[in-house]
Amino acid sequence: MITPSKKAMGIEYAIRDVILPARELEKKGVDVIRLNIGDPGKYDFQPPEHMQEAYCRAIKEGHNYYGPSEGLPELREAIVQREKRKNGVDITADDVRVTAAVTEALQFVFGGLLDPGDNILVPSPSYPPYVGLVKFYGAEPREYMTVEENGWQPDIDDMRKLIDERTKGIAIINPNNPTGALYEKKTVKAVLDLAGEYDLPVISDEIYDLMTYEGKHVSPGSLTKDVPVIVMNGLSKVYFATGWRLGYLYYVDPEGKLAEVREAIDKLARIRVCPNTPAQFAAIAGLNGPMDYLERYMAKLKERRDYIYKRVQEIPGISAQKPQGAFYVFPRIDERSKWKNDFDFVMDVLHEAHVLFVHGSGFGRAGDWHFRIVFLPPVEILEKAMDRFEAFMKKRLAE
Amino acid sequence: MITPSKKAMGIEYAIRDVILPARELEKKGVDVIRLNIGDPGKYDFQPPEHMQEAYCRAIKEGHNYYGPSEGLPELREAIVQREKRKNGVDITADDVRVTAAVTEALQFVFGGLLDPGDNILVPSPSYPPYVGLVKFYGAEPREYMTVEENGWQPDIDDMRKLIDERTKGIAIINPNNPTGALYEKKTVKAVLDLAGEYDLPVISDEIYDLMTYEGKHVSPGSLTKDVPVIVMNGLSKVYFATGWRLGYLYYVDPEGKLAEVREAIDKLARIRVCPNTPAQFAAIAGLNGPMDYLERYMAKLKERRDYIYKRVQEIPGISAQKPQGAFYVFPRIDERSKWKNDFDFVMDVLHEAHVLFVHGSGFGRAGDWHFRIVFLPPVEILEKAMDRFEAFMKKRLAE
Repeated sequence: MITPSKKAMGIEYAIRDVILPARELEKKGVDVIRLNIGDPGKYDFQPPEHMQEAYCRAIKEGHNYYGPSEGLPELREAIVQREKRKNGVDITADDVRVTAAVTEALQFVFGGLLDPGDNILVPSPSYPPYVGLVKFYGAEPREYMTVEENGWQPDIDDMRKLIDERTKGIAIINPNNPTGALYEKKTVKAVLDLAGEYDLPVISDEIYDLMTYEGKHVSPGSLTKDVPVIVMNGLSKVYFATGWRLGYLYYVDPEGKLAEVREAIDKLARIRVCPNTPAQFAAIAGLNGPMDYLERYMAKLKERRDYIYKRVQEIPGISAQKPQGAFYVFPRIDERSKWKNDFDFVMDVLHEAHVLFVHGSGFGRAGDWHFRIVFLPPVEILEKAMDRFEAFMKKRLAE
Repeated sequence: MITPSKKAMGIEYAIRDVILPARELEKKGVDVIRLNIGDPGKYDFQPPEHMQEAYCRAIKEGHNYYGPSEGLPELREAIVQREKRKNGVDITADDVRVTAAVTEALQFVFGGLLDPGDNILVPSPSYPPYVGLVKFYGAEPREYMTVEENGWQPDIDDMRKLIDERTKGIAIINPNNPTGALYEKKTVKAVLDLAGEYDLPVISDEIYDLMTYEGKHVSPGSLTKDVPVIVMNGLSKVYFATGWRLGYLYYVDPEGKLAEVREAIDKLARIRVCPNTPAQFAAIAGLNGPMDYLERYMAKLKERRDYIYKRVQEIPGISAQKPQGAFYVFPRIDERSKWKNDFDFVMDVLHEAHVLFVHGSGFGRAGDWHFRIVFLPPVEILEKAMDRFEAFMKKRLAE
């Protein structure tokens, strides 16, 4: 037997790990309602027509070559304009790097910052690659708590306690996956202040930035005076193009503190050659183009958010914060006597009610005894799922 | 100043590192003939029509969602059929993983195999990520020599000397970048025998497999009886779709020795979500479709190969092996008194003759005092470049 690397074997990815038992059931002919993956493209959402057109035009016009490793200049300029409109940041195309989605941006940022022995602050709960990738690079993800009762806002005091001389940055995901939290301006400012105090960069995952309900997203990039911020974003959510795998990162770094980190990231970018070229033309069209589709899609999402939140509130044994952004709700399991843990709960729901959630502990320790529901499907599917789930809960709680 | 990771800063990528001085010259209005990047899409080569059509159709038909992290089942089946035709391997779709080009396949294979302290045998000279990525993962790339006088075939005795108890595999690139070598069947067999002796997997980069001139490519996957082989391939060269960033790897592992490595690679695959979805439909069309375009394109490439080889033989002070595959020639600098090293030589050619090559030492120690010429451009461009280069050499040698 050839032995694998320990660091790769240490990676967990809860969102996809629950798929195997669901597939087993489906093979037996069971109709499982999957509410586990945050993919709008699986439902009634598509990247807008003008992006699809631009993608095809680029292919037909022969833009199938290797582009620059940092991304096409026209796309980097479109990103600058988009981010100036959204966040008022003072950046140029030189501050932007195009990536294969936020996933690759994370590889670049963690790979460019972290050596073994270093650590970085990541939210708990958080999107699993934040923990998995940091560990894969031999560094330590330190999970700071976010406070459920406070709408899952980060606990700044907890952050402070985790910082030591090997801390290399503070990561925030806002709007948050898996909690649907939208951070208040004062919270974002407090994160910046703390980072400034310890001379740390803030790494800001803003992939859901325009996908908010009542409030508006505030980027640390738009508030910083001297603290370096690395913003990550892409086409996957707000532009509904998950399968195109295109994203970007940029530096808001008024004092040039990231000069060497930028060089390290450029080395990582060069060694992987370049991002998909024709997809970058689609991105140019998307970032420069009309956004009316977003209003229509957000109206649908808001209806689904309202529906799922109402149902979750009515189901006994669980409770939830109202999602303010993204398309997730992250309920707490209040009645715990029937299950060993949240994974046991999710597997029980899968096998009895044939509805697939993701267990909260898969998102870090603050996710214990929680679970994530994706509310992307149309209301009639959500209704069927919630009917099954409600019946399941009533039966279990009566046992 | 925020410090970057040492491991990222240690990465070198010669092919793209020579671009900056070339850009400087171009900014001043100099017409540089770039023969540095192996990108057919920059010249008169395009992915075949039926692949372009399938790519666009997939976008228009809504295949813009996240696919499975292992790749679409239909594509994995098309890969099985393609590889059975080409190599006669006994594999199923379950043995195949779709990646963002061979680059990501390398990330998976090295990431899934290597922990700090491990080592892996890589060819010298070799495509730079083989050295760069292995180092980035904290492991040691051990360069085995390939023998110029013997058409750049691997030196099996040198390989053997490099193996110790921390060696995790032997990598071969065949047809080779940067030498254009095509390995003989007996060489491939000797590599397999050596790997079998030490219970190591062979990692086989076959991205140029159907891009050969006189001979035919032989895969270790088609010869192995018990030695596990990981084959890497993709759309970038034989399908002329460099900018689409789509590739794959598969396991030929008759005795199941890679079971745990496969699990590690699947963890790395899950954490990056999935490859580009519509591009996978293009790949299905390409792998299942007609290959007549390849004959036309290879006729063009052969003409250019013959031309460049003739010219290189006539230019004083250098000599070269005739490329048997890919689109590179890797001449040796025989007259060395005029330059400090091969990088100095390449920079001198750039600044005096305005032709951009890549210095051989950028491909590892066996590349010292060599340089790589990409012969993709039409003969009239190659002619102009060789005229300039020949005049330069004659002038320098007369000085």
